Amino acid sequence: MSLEVAILDVKPGATEEFEAAFKTASPIIASISGYISHELQRCIETQHRYILLVRWQKLEDHTIGFRQSAEYQQWRSLLHHFYDPFPSVEHYELVQLMQE
Amino acid sequence: MSLEVAILDVKPGATEEFEAAFKTASPIIASISGYISHELQRCIETQHRYILLVRWQKLEDHTIGFRQSAEYQQWRSLLHHFYDPFPSVEHYELVQLMQE
Repeated sequence: MSLEVAILDVKPGATEEFEAAFKTASPIIASISGYISHELQRCIETQHRYILLVRWQKLEDHTIGFRQSAEYQQWRSLLHHFYDPFPSVEHYELVQLMQE
Repeated sequence: MSLEVAILDVKPGATEEFEAAFKTASPIIASISGYISHELQRCIETQHRYILLVRWQKLEDHTIGFRQSAEYQQWRSLLHHFYDPFPSVEHYELVQLMQE
């Protein structure tokens, strides 16, 4: 499993509109082969910051399967104009998971 | 639920030792009241970078319950010397969760 991590700084004042657009866009990413789950979380300390965590079966499901798809163009046009600065995206692989 | 997020840049060359120390330290954080789960993930693009995601029942379980505990001193002494620069930690709350 590969974890995609993006810290999203949304233009201040546009957070409500962003959250609505994100909910519209969610089925797009969820329809891609290799998608497992995603969560959007909002920062408590910096109210116009979010973190997006997307779990993919493998790295290429995101970097190739999603980013080179027609669906990605829809995703982009719904969401990318909210970001300032444009986010960098990183991928992670599990070292340790522990639960109570 | 509150999500604690820390991007951890470990001194290059110390990643193996850090991962072993992290496994030693894990039961410390897991013993704190309000702890739900944590995951340590390693960055694919920057091999000495990690992300730590800790889920707490509420924000104060981390900011007060853990950080003001005796256990936190043990956690610090096991882990903090690996970080360069010293990480900033943020807290997030859920906007949307979706699963396949």
